[in-house]
Amino acid sequence: MSTDTPNVSSFVPPIRTLMGPGPSDVHPRILSALARPTIGHLDPQFVSMMDEMKSMLQYAFQTKNELTIPVSAPGSAGMETCFVNMVEPGDTVIVCQNGVFGARMKENVERCGATPVMVEDEWGKPVDPNKLAEALKANPQASTVAFVHAETSTGAQSDVAALTKLAHEHDCLVIVDAVTSLGGTPIKVDEWGVDAIYSGSQKCLSCTPGLSPVSFSEAAVERVKSRKTAVQSWFLDLNLVMGYWGEGAKRTYHHTAPVNALYGLHEALVLLQEEGLENAWARHQKNHLILRAGIEAMGLSFIVPEEARLPQLNAVTIPDGVDEAAVRGRLLNEFNLEIGAGLGALAGKVWRIGLMGHASNVKNVMFCLGALDTVLTDMGAPIKSGVAVAAAQAAIGQS
Amino acid sequence: MSTDTPNVSSFVPPIRTLMGPGPSDVHPRILSALARPTIGHLDPQFVSMMDEMKSMLQYAFQTKNELTIPVSAPGSAGMETCFVNMVEPGDTVIVCQNGVFGARMKENVERCGATPVMVEDEWGKPVDPNKLAEALKANPQASTVAFVHAETSTGAQSDVAALTKLAHEHDCLVIVDAVTSLGGTPIKVDEWGVDAIYSGSQKCLSCTPGLSPVSFSEAAVERVKSRKTAVQSWFLDLNLVMGYWGEGAKRTYHHTAPVNALYGLHEALVLLQEEGLENAWARHQKNHLILRAGIEAMGLSFIVPEEARLPQLNAVTIPDGVDEAAVRGRLLNEFNLEIGAGLGALAGKVWRIGLMGHASNVKNVMFCLGALDTVLTDMGAPIKSGVAVAAAQAAIGQS
Repeated sequence: MSTDTPNVSSFVPPIRTLMGPGPSDVHPRILSALARPTIGHLDPQFVSMMDEMKSMLQYAFQTKNELTIPVSAPGSAGMETCFVNMVEPGDTVIVCQNGVFGARMKENVERCGATPVMVEDEWGKPVDPNKLAEALKANPQASTVAFVHAETSTGAQSDVAALTKLAHEHDCLVIVDAVTSLGGTPIKVDEWGVDAIYSGSQKCLSCTPGLSPVSFSEAAVERVKSRKTAVQSWFLDLNLVMGYWGEGAKRTYHHTAPVNALYGLHEALVLLQEEGLENAWARHQKNHLILRAGIEAMGLSFIVPEEARLPQLNAVTIPDGVDEAAVRGRLLNEFNLEIGAGLGALAGKVWRIGLMGHASNVKNVMFCLGALDTVLTDMGAPIKSGVAVAAAQAAIGQS
Repeated sequence: MSTDTPNVSSFVPPIRTLMGPGPSDVHPRILSALARPTIGHLDPQFVSMMDEMKSMLQYAFQTKNELTIPVSAPGSAGMETCFVNMVEPGDTVIVCQNGVFGARMKENVERCGATPVMVEDEWGKPVDPNKLAEALKANPQASTVAFVHAETSTGAQSDVAALTKLAHEHDCLVIVDAVTSLGGTPIKVDEWGVDAIYSGSQKCLSCTPGLSPVSFSEAAVERVKSRKTAVQSWFLDLNLVMGYWGEGAKRTYHHTAPVNALYGLHEALVLLQEEGLENAWARHQKNHLILRAGIEAMGLSFIVPEEARLPQLNAVTIPDGVDEAAVRGRLLNEFNLEIGAGLGALAGKVWRIGLMGHASNVKNVMFCLGALDTVLTDMGAPIKSGVAVAAAQAAIGQS
């Protein structure tokens, strides 16, 4: 043997509470579903399960789009699916950036051989429709507008309906990042006229990471089918993927679907259906308000203006003089609690507290506030100590 | 609501025996591992698990290559990872094709903007090194040679060491498809000098589908780092992926890793380590010989010459006048047994019986032979009935 036999034991993870930017706590019924016996990706029973999955994803996205499926890879691959299929070399794509993920969209546009036109907004603010309108006027050659609905790096929400309407007025199709919004905050693909949208399984759907739900309008499918150039990715080429996920019982093998991961997403969508979309949205909002009461009582604040604030991703300021990484380390080691660091321009400036899917519940809110209060007080941080949990308790009745 | 609430129940799959071309039966310990609590993809304990995973993948591939990791998507994405990173627009790539997956390699080359030079061999035969030698002489501009180690569509094995040696003599690097071979049949990446290799989790590793182990030599990494053009895929760009899977405790977020799927692969590799690679190879060979005794006693035969026959993928002829799809349907419905259909040029001409990973055991062999004998006899097929299982039993002692 050229390399020796390793000596590794089975991995038994600790039990964390996941209140970062995702993955979020996975519902126990989803974990159980993952462990069900594997069947073939062309098994008739699996094909029936795929059809159910499509109908439940249509519900989650609020769309009748036929091409509404999970991409067999994480959200980043869902993003790439949208760009490599919708964009051709030489195209101009207007990308609205107000956080990390707009920059990633720009990367995608460039790797498609297209030209990005950037519309920049301050991190933590929503995309400004006026700036988009100007960019559309200045770039009549643009074919596509891309923006993030719920910026995971800042917790800011942009107005998809308004931005889409503007884009359509200039004959552009839109690509929308809904990784952090799906299931947590209203998305209405058909009502808003969205053309291409992608999300992730590990945020407000409470599922494990690894899958990316996407949906494409008829206009988007038409564009994909009438491309002049081949899609640069074989794996993500929707013309091929449609043969496997398309209508009817006849499915053409494209790639081997991640069978057990799809069991998990199916169960996550059954849970969403049981709760009801509007109830899920209301629960996310309610728990955000309870968290907010505690955070503000402590003397911390939110970086996103209230009207654009996402309930599931709370970007919170760090008290002066506090080593923010040390705080996260103590929360993880002493409380098995994960909260998120700032990303990109906000690294070291905010914590990101996720209240996503199954993790958006009163127990988590109280626990997080109590643990944060304990650690910050112990470290001598300039906060108002010992009041956060009580403030949250008081807010439970009000919200 | 623009779309109504669906009315879907939890999906409870049937319990199948998976003896097709993959996914294969998943070991119960792997299913259990999938259901363990999710932790963050940047959690220090997860990072330690990733390091263990790398060392176990190095063992499985028999390599000391630092860049030995699982791609966060199925085998097709592992293939694409190799091509989009190793190939640049304008390159010439020699692709040896002797089945379906060589054609997929050609697609990948073209979508990289490179020129494929095809070396064709009959389906069911190994790649002919003499033909490759001729192609290398005729195409001195070629930079890369790509071929399939274990053709899943035919069950033929090619001589990786010989083909790699030829490629290197002409200053080409090699890309090797080992989707069906890893863990089932000898692979010696360092000894053979392989530059880039990809596999799948759902074949001889007995894991669920959705991950693609890959390994890259120093020469391959050097090529990726010194590319003149950006890798066309952001998601699969190894220059970025290395920041997350690279050396040391500092991991840079690239995409959200499929945490629970990786628990499963980790457990699969612990199982492989416990059995020992050489024992796993020997077990696959032994069970193939037992199956062969039964298949041949029935009067059926293998399409691959014995010296190139893969033990884990048995492409078997179909008796004259038999509706092969009806046979597979009865095996599935009456016995919960999945065997594979022929693919591409072999559609309707062979069955593919997989004996992969955990599914490669005497119980499965006896069950498959008994079920196939029963159904074919009942359908009046021209086979020698009622002897297959006994012949296999006799072979148990001999093999």
